[in-house]
Formats: sequence, structure tokens, C-alpha cells
Amino acid sequence: MTQQELIYQIKKKNSFLCIGLDVDLDKIPTHLLKSEDPIFEFNKQIIDATHHLSVAYKPNTAFYEAYGIKGWKSLEKTIRYLNENYPDIFTIADAKRGDIGNTSTMYAKAFFEDLKFDSVTVAPYMGSDSVEPFLAFEDKFTILLALTSNKGGLDFQGLKVNENELYKEVLQKAITWKNNQNLMFVVGATKAEYFKDIREIVPNHFLLVPGVGAQGGNLQDVCKYGLTKDVGLLINSSRGIIYAGNNKDFAEKAKEKALELQQQMEVILANL
Amino acid sequence: MTQQELIYQIKKKNSFLCIGLDVDLDKIPTHLLKSEDPIFEFNKQIIDATHHLSVAYKPNTAFYEAYGIKGWKSLEKTIRYLNENYPDIFTIADAKRGDIGNTSTMYAKAFFEDLKFDSVTVAPYMGSDSVEPFLAFEDKFTILLALTSNKGGLDFQGLKVNENELYKEVLQKAITWKNNQNLMFVVGATKAEYFKDIREIVPNHFLLVPGVGAQGGNLQDVCKYGLTKDVGLLINSSRGIIYAGNNKDFAEKAKEKALELQQQMEVILANL
Repeated sequence: MTQQELIYQIKKKNSFLCIGLDVDLDKIPTHLLKSEDPIFEFNKQIIDATHHLSVAYKPNTAFYEAYGIKGWKSLEKTIRYLNENYPDIFTIADAKRGDIGNTSTMYAKAFFEDLKFDSVTVAPYMGSDSVEPFLAFEDKFTILLALTSNKGGLDFQGLKVNENELYKEVLQKAITWKNNQNLMFVVGATKAEYFKDIREIVPNHFLLVPGVGAQGGNLQDVCKYGLTKDVGLLINSSRGIIYAGNNKDFAEKAKEKALELQQQMEVILANL
Repeated sequence: MTQQELIYQIKKKNSFLCIGLDVDLDKIPTHLLKSEDPIFEFNKQIIDATHHLSVAYKPNTAFYEAYGIKGWKSLEKTIRYLNENYPDIFTIADAKRGDIGNTSTMYAKAFFEDLKFDSVTVAPYMGSDSVEPFLAFEDKFTILLALTSNKGGLDFQGLKVNENELYKEVLQKAITWKNNQNLMFVVGATKAEYFKDIREIVPNHFLLVPGVGAQGGNLQDVCKYGLTKDVGLLINSSRGIIYAGNNKDFAEKAKEKALELQQQMEVILANL
């Protein structure tokens, strides 16, 4: 998917919602556990109920890897289901990969070519040659961790380097890399005031924003500083949506929560 | 495996060699491609030929993931083969993971409990709560990226923070984390002179050192500054050993290369 297509979808659906498919067998409705592939069954029902309200889905690969080969099969089935049934959806492998050049190419192939994701999250610590192999894929996006929303996020990301915090240095360097038009950035929503500074460094790049909802971030605050003329934001919600219900009507409950967010987004977009 | 057991194995074998199992179907001898699982078959023969010369094996998970579910099966078979046949070997999942707390726990379970690796490599960018879930596992080791040997390694790792380079800050903070006795660090061999400073910060922790051989690092230089009274080093070689030959005698050729390194290590250990 190209960035123009993503923007078109956002405007068509009046939504810049991304739904995180972080599926934990301990948390899904128990009646699903009897099905052949409970994780895929859960995802399928969530996707079918919410696809008109969201523009992106983001499975966190850790949740799948934790179940070994069975988990990888569920991931494969989920991405295939999305690509076959909802080709207009932007798909994100939240894998937080990053390795030396040659190895990053292997990862890029695994996620972009083998699994056919539109994008993958990547960690910046190993520098340019660990990220550029991902950027080399046309119409695929590399979503680089900049500022994460976890408690320890600032342990290193907040350290001052060259009078700037490290995460700003990451943004500044990254946009000089080859094929940087294929970059997006992860910026946690728990620090909405930071979006102002961030938009001075990356005025146009898309930002993937976790931390709205369960982690306490506020949608309006994020949008106030983070929106661009082409929207430029994907707001992720995982637990807040997918675990909204825990009975047979879980997908309906998820839809209600997704609708709440989509409606807030529609208001925000109307004022853009 | 405990650290004491690892040290015992090093002294018994007169070797602190780790062999990287970065298996690429384009590089292995073509006669193996006919077997049911060429990657596992390659690994099995390499391990059988070299296990008496090395104390550790390190599959880089990217190389397995690149082949999808088939690749994960090869990885599972490889780690199971090691654990069943060579329980004295220290095993490293070179996965460079790192995510928010809950998700890191999923990864830790996947590698430590499901696959039964002794250790896993982890990236520090997301801070303490992305690493501590790994450290909570007893007799399992978390090998944190500090200074990597790739070209772009210094892009961020070399930035000055608090008058120190970022990688030193990573070392300094990490050793204050809970269960830091379960930490080891990745320090690339291409900058042997850096080991002096590093040993001032982490005098006793084990360092996993890639970059000897193919990437140009020098074993003697690394040992001069990096060795501790308990050795404290695992020197990794991947391509230099596993691709030493490309015919039916590839395992024998790998053994010769491993033996060269082991003999150099034996001399170094004799002078410790």
C-alpha cells in the first residue's frame, strides 16, 4: 500500500484508528478455546466486526511467537485473512526488529515478502545499516521506534545528546537515511506535549501512536499537536478494544469501543 | 545453565568459542538441499563436528524467520537437538528482542520456556521495564546489546550523553537493574581498544563478542582487555566457521576453522 492510499482510506472511513491484535489465550472468551485455532478465530471475528471503523491492524508478533509454531500459523492465517478479505487495510507487524545489514534484509523479506505485511516496527539502536535494508522495499513502511510509552521509555530515549533528547536525535538522523520517505515513527501518546517538538523535526511523516486508552494517553491532546494536513497519525488501541467484552458478544463489544474512537476521530477530522 | 557451569565448560574444553548458526539456504552445500530439512541437517552436521571445540551455539533467529513456519521448525529442531545431545552447551537465541513489559514476558517465555534456550539477546532502547522481564528468569541469561560491530553501530551508541558514550550509559544503567546478575552484554570486536573502558564499568559480566574473523576483529586484542579471572568472554564466529567449506566435507572444514580458534584460545587461557 502506498502512503496516498492510506490517506485515501483514512479520509474515506473518517478514521485513523489502528487496532492492535495482541492476543493472549488467557484473555479471550473461553468458548473460543474449543475452536481449532482460537487466536485466528478471535482475530477473524474482531476484524470482521471492526474493519469499517479502522484503517490498520497491528499484531504484536511476541504474542504469536509465545505459542511457538502454532502461534506463527495463527499469525500467518491472520495476515492472509486481512490481505484476502480487506485489501484496503494497512497492516503492521509490530516486531521491533533490528539487526546488522544482512540480517535485517532477512527480517524485511520475512515480513514484507513472505507474510506480505505493509509495514514493520524496527528498533533504532544498531543504527543506519540496521534500518536501511527495510527502507529499500518500495511501498513498504518501516516504523522506527522513537519515543515509546512504557515506564522505562525515557531511561535512554530521554537522555540528552547534543542538547537534544536521544529520541529527537533518532528522528533527526533517520530522516537523512536513504529512502526515508518509507519511514514512519512510533511515538507514545502518554506524552502528548512532546508532539509539538516532534512535528518540528518530522513535519510530514506518519506517526504510529500507542498508549491511547489503556495506557492513559488522550486522543485530543495528541491530535492537537500531532495532526498534519494529511492527518499523519495512526492511533493504536489494543486491549481497550479487543478485550472490551469477554463473552460470546466480544466482537460486538469491540466494535462499540472502536466506534467510540472512530466517532471522536470523525469530529477531529471535520475540523482539520 | 548457571554461570558457574559455563565457566566450568570453558575451562574443561579450553575454549570460549561460540558458533553462530546463521544458516542461509543460498550458502549451504547444494547436496543438502535434497534433505527434508536442509537447515537442520546443516546445523546437525556442524554441531556434531564442532561441539567439543565450542562452548556455545548462537542461531540468529532472523535467518529462521525468513523461511516462515518451516524456518521456525528448523530452529526448534536445532535447539532440541542441542539440548538432548549436548546438554553442556550454552545456547543463545540471537533474537535482539525488546518490547514493553508484558510483551517482553511473552518473548522471554517463548525463548526460555518454550524453546529452552539458555539465553537471548535483547535491545536496550525501550529501557528497564523492557529488559527486566527477561532478567526475572533464574539461570537464564539476557544478553543486552551494548556496542555492536556493524558500520552504523556508533550512529546512536557512540553519541555522548553525560560525558559518556550512550553504550557506556547502557552498561551503567543496566547493572543497576533488578536481577542484573543474569545480564551479559554484546560488545563488538571491531573496537578492541574499547574493552578497557568497558571492563571498568562491568568488570565481571560475561561479554558476547561478535566480529572476530569475517568482520575483522582480532582475538588477541579483545582478550588483552576483555578477559576476566573467570574468562568472561564468549567469542562468536559465524560465517568464518560454518561456511569454511561448501562441499560434502563442509562440516570437516568447519571443524578445522573452529580448531584454529580453539587452539588460539587454549594458549590465551594458559597464560591467564
